[in-house]
Amino acid sequence: MGLFSKPIKTLDDLFVHTMQDIYYAENQIVKNLPTMIAKASNPELKAAFTKHLTETQGQVKRLEQVFQMHGQPVKGVTCPAMDGILAEAKEVISDCGDPEVCDAAMLSAAQAVEHYEITRYGSLIAYAKQLGRNDCAQVLQQTLAEEKTTDQTLSRIAESRVNKLAA
Amino acid sequence: MGLFSKPIKTLDDLFVHTMQDIYYAENQIVKNLPTMIAKASNPELKAAFTKHLTETQGQVKRLEQVFQMHGQPVKGVTCPAMDGILAEAKEVISDCGDPEVCDAAMLSAAQAVEHYEITRYGSLIAYAKQLGRNDCAQVLQQTLAEEKTTDQTLSRIAESRVNKLAA
Repeated sequence: MGLFSKPIKTLDDLFVHTMQDIYYAENQIVKNLPTMIAKASNPELKAAFTKHLTETQGQVKRLEQVFQMHGQPVKGVTCPAMDGILAEAKEVISDCGDPEVCDAAMLSAAQAVEHYEITRYGSLIAYAKQLGRNDCAQVLQQTLAEEKTTDQTLSRIAESRVNKLAA
Repeated sequence: MGLFSKPIKTLDDLFVHTMQDIYYAENQIVKNLPTMIAKASNPELKAAFTKHLTETQGQVKRLEQVFQMHGQPVKGVTCPAMDGILAEAKEVISDCGDPEVCDAAMLSAAQAVEHYEITRYGSLIAYAKQLGRNDCAQVLQQTLAEEKTTDQTLSRIAESRVNKLAA
């Protein structure tokens, strides 16, 4: 979650701030996935990243919808955690000699991204429900389901192919 | 995962580097949990953080055991993702006026920490198995099980008490 641009006094403040954090994070993912798609050697991994780029673009739109439903301007705040995860992914891509090891490292980075999103969407859904915004929770739930499916897909690829090839 | 101190050429390099990353992360958690314990208002949350501090100290020991089993020196590398998650947790603690909202934000930060650990231990276990180090995988599996239980405990507290109080 991003550093706080204003004091968090209520659960509503925390909900809005977490929305801004994940909005920044999703947009960073949209920017970074094309490089990961280009660098992936394993065809299954390339396909999973490609599919997830389209999904992430839809998730950005969903967040914009929730901002609007909640009467808030669409805004992002810098998220050092996501920046850290993506910085290391870039480092892997530039440094890693062996394509299969590079795939394994990119898979791990992508799963760290997914888990960050899973925990933040989980919090957002809990906050929305407590705030009586089941309508917002329902929209966010669609994204959470997609993130969990992507994580499972990445785990399956990691276990079945990439790690074996790299060993 | 930390930025790479040396090129990652093999899956073994990636395994060792990820070990160093999570070793740094666990030690940062040991340093930061006492403040979160002191600031938590909800007694269940305080108890969960207290229990997790003891567990985390045990997880550090387990990592030291795996370094030894794998013939590697015990070493950490800076992990910008964990630093980012903890920086935001500190920001919450210093800025947040209402104790219940502060609890909700600390819970969210703690769950982000747990999810980061869950994904990295998941990768480590997959790498260890592919490297034929089922002995290392077994030790790491004990920690992964603890992290998942902690995350479930935090989710239960978040849903049952803290968010309701803060709304």
